[in-house]
Amino acid sequence: MSGRIAIDGHELRAAVDAQLPLAESLFDEIRSTSAADVGVTRPAWSTEDQFASDRIAHVARLLGLETAYDHAGNLYCTLPGRDRRAPAVLTGSHTDSVPTGGHYDGLAGAVAGLVALAAFRDLGWQPGRDVAAIATRAEESVWFGIPFIGARLALGSLSLDHLDSLRRTDTGRTLAEHMAALGLDADALRREDEPRLSPATACAFLELHIEQGPVLVAEGAQVAIPTVIRGNVRWPGATCLGRYDHSGATPRDHRQDTVLAAAELVQGLEAFWIEREESGEPDTVFTVGRFFTDGAHHAMTKVPGRCDFTLNFGGTSQAFLDACRTEVEARAAEIAVRRRVAFDLGECVQAAPAPLDEPLRAVLDDSAAALDIPTRRFATVGHDAAVFQRAGIPAAMVLVRNAHGSHNPDEAMTLEDFGAGCAVLAAAITRLAA
Amino acid sequence: MSGRIAIDGHELRAAVDAQLPLAESLFDEIRSTSAADVGVTRPAWSTEDQFASDRIAHVARLLGLETAYDHAGNLYCTLPGRDRRAPAVLTGSHTDSVPTGGHYDGLAGAVAGLVALAAFRDLGWQPGRDVAAIATRAEESVWFGIPFIGARLALGSLSLDHLDSLRRTDTGRTLAEHMAALGLDADALRREDEPRLSPATACAFLELHIEQGPVLVAEGAQVAIPTVIRGNVRWPGATCLGRYDHSGATPRDHRQDTVLAAAELVQGLEAFWIEREESGEPDTVFTVGRFFTDGAHHAMTKVPGRCDFTLNFGGTSQAFLDACRTEVEARAAEIAVRRRVAFDLGECVQAAPAPLDEPLRAVLDDSAAALDIPTRRFATVGHDAAVFQRAGIPAAMVLVRNAHGSHNPDEAMTLEDFGAGCAVLAAAITRLAA
Repeated sequence: MSGRIAIDGHELRAAVDAQLPLAESLFDEIRSTSAADVGVTRPAWSTEDQFASDRIAHVARLLGLETAYDHAGNLYCTLPGRDRRAPAVLTGSHTDSVPTGGHYDGLAGAVAGLVALAAFRDLGWQPGRDVAAIATRAEESVWFGIPFIGARLALGSLSLDHLDSLRRTDTGRTLAEHMAALGLDADALRREDEPRLSPATACAFLELHIEQGPVLVAEGAQVAIPTVIRGNVRWPGATCLGRYDHSGATPRDHRQDTVLAAAELVQGLEAFWIEREESGEPDTVFTVGRFFTDGAHHAMTKVPGRCDFTLNFGGTSQAFLDACRTEVEARAAEIAVRRRVAFDLGECVQAAPAPLDEPLRAVLDDSAAALDIPTRRFATVGHDAAVFQRAGIPAAMVLVRNAHGSHNPDEAMTLEDFGAGCAVLAAAITRLAA
Repeated sequence: MSGRIAIDGHELRAAVDAQLPLAESLFDEIRSTSAADVGVTRPAWSTEDQFASDRIAHVARLLGLETAYDHAGNLYCTLPGRDRRAPAVLTGSHTDSVPTGGHYDGLAGAVAGLVALAAFRDLGWQPGRDVAAIATRAEESVWFGIPFIGARLALGSLSLDHLDSLRRTDTGRTLAEHMAALGLDADALRREDEPRLSPATACAFLELHIEQGPVLVAEGAQVAIPTVIRGNVRWPGATCLGRYDHSGATPRDHRQDTVLAAAELVQGLEAFWIEREESGEPDTVFTVGRFFTDGAHHAMTKVPGRCDFTLNFGGTSQAFLDACRTEVEARAAEIAVRRRVAFDLGECVQAAPAPLDEPLRAVLDDSAAALDIPTRRFATVGHDAAVFQRAGIPAAMVLVRNAHGSHNPDEAMTLEDFGAGCAVLAAAITRLAA
């Protein structure tokens, strides 16, 4: 195969837009098989998940692309380059969703890769190296308790013990059993000498994903090029223990009130957060997502003797996350003594910040600018891109405007915004794979 | 019947102590029929509740006392006085317990009256007017949703519509149906011209009750003579509504975080409480007994879009309770605007403070002093005494030391402390009914 080796930005934009009806029909077809009573449910390594990949593969073959599954079931749709031995440019995202989730978290990025390759075919552009649109498995941690499983299996960065030890939370069956049910051979993974993906076989990974927050909607922009995948420090099961007492018969000095103690803790941590943010620490978050007295024992007329809560700090610098941990522990200890309660903070879970590749981000920024698509920059959360970056394959992302957040049935990416994101993605690929 | 008309305090104390084995056997016998898997359960107008009253009546008859039930099932064990037409001195408390509660909340006061009358019989003392030990029904609000039902039926201060409209929370059957199941005739209540109890038939009501808080244990005293039944202002079903958002993808300025908003509210109200207390407002309490994010939707990684909570202030002055209401409403309104959330405080329930009768409290104080039993004074919570006082029958109380609070299986009144409380009660009766 031979073809053009240069490509004009606005011609590319038109070619991408011409593929949007194809994307729409793929979205619709896949939705029809994974719609739940509420929203969309595509469990990892389910028949619904497999259907999504298979439909993408089917369309890829109609477009004349090479298609292949790896032993974990990740899909690769490849537009061959002039140098087939050069490390490939990869783009894609995952096909699984959370239960009763939205349709686009993951799937948008898997389809976006195909849209870019379809546009390249239409334009007769042949890349200098292979370009592959991939669809990964099990990015969502809800199914097996940990995230990014498909990508990590392809990258060789997940112990294969997990094939038999992880069980899907809804079925109780192991990862290997679910793979076998789809005709995948988990033992083949165990026999592999080299991981499917490595810096020797892939030179870049670009992931398009819907924005999961409100910033692009609020700022009236279609696309963001995120700077870093935030790290976090989390306490998923913190408890404050005091004593249940009669609310009317117990004077203040005799109380061991856990709600007032935990409320003081979270108020103090919020003040710490705001102070750091106002001191210039960028892109931090603090969330107390769960906070609850014990439904079996609490009452309006009882001093609450137990209160459970979660703490969740995110940030882009390890120094900030370390300071959060020190702050939480010090405040809890001080409040416990003063208020005669005990804090059992439970397990502390940490993940380091993962900066996205700066040269790749520059390529995306330049590509958007050349297309007159204004972008925003901010930190984002965990995605497959993080595990590519950690495995030594430079990674960056394109976030597309989406109302109502993600992981819920109300995700609302427009096809127009999707097209803008795909255009930036495709333009960047033409630069990376020229 | 005739007998002594004066009685020495220390002789009385010995006579009361001599009745403690009788009290202990009554407590044990009643416990054996109302013990639940955990603690004690004596629902209002249950067979267990009826057994408790019947055993007290049985012992009363053995002691030569007159016994009678009113149409609501309240028990009266009467030691006749020289003037049988003079308004009687009443003492007693309730026989019902909360579910899986303790044995002494209520029952101690019902048995205490019998102990006092038994001591009087032993001493051959004849009062100048009738003295009746009573055992009331349904003091606990848990069974029919409102408290003091038996006493209010005897006092004529409860609309008789409630006989058919109130349903027991565990059985779903009406109050009238439960009465009928025990052979009581609810229609007889409807035919009564005059309530069973009024200032014309009763000149005083003294209620012995276990202390439900920790003060007497902490201060090493056996008995308290409470000053006032606290009033309260309560919000049993307050809600803060915001928006669920991705914890990692939503910057602070875009959040509508309900836990941080409600935590600020309760922290501010606690500060208000402490400030008022330190300014000299006596005997106040503030409790947030229930505080919970929505179990169906909350997650460590979601900004909490909903938080439910209760607010419960108690105090001895109406001015303080009014200030609490103003404070709650003003703070909630201010926080809602600043934090972009909505507070729906729901129904506000209020009860006025009820001072206990000062002359009667003086008689109890003097009686304790004469017996060398040190006492404490503080506010207490709602009891049958409050409805007697409101109905024009002077009422006062004797609180007995009790570890671990009430409404739980760990109530721990000692027989010795009970004896001290009974002695104060009996000595006061000899002054009131001389």
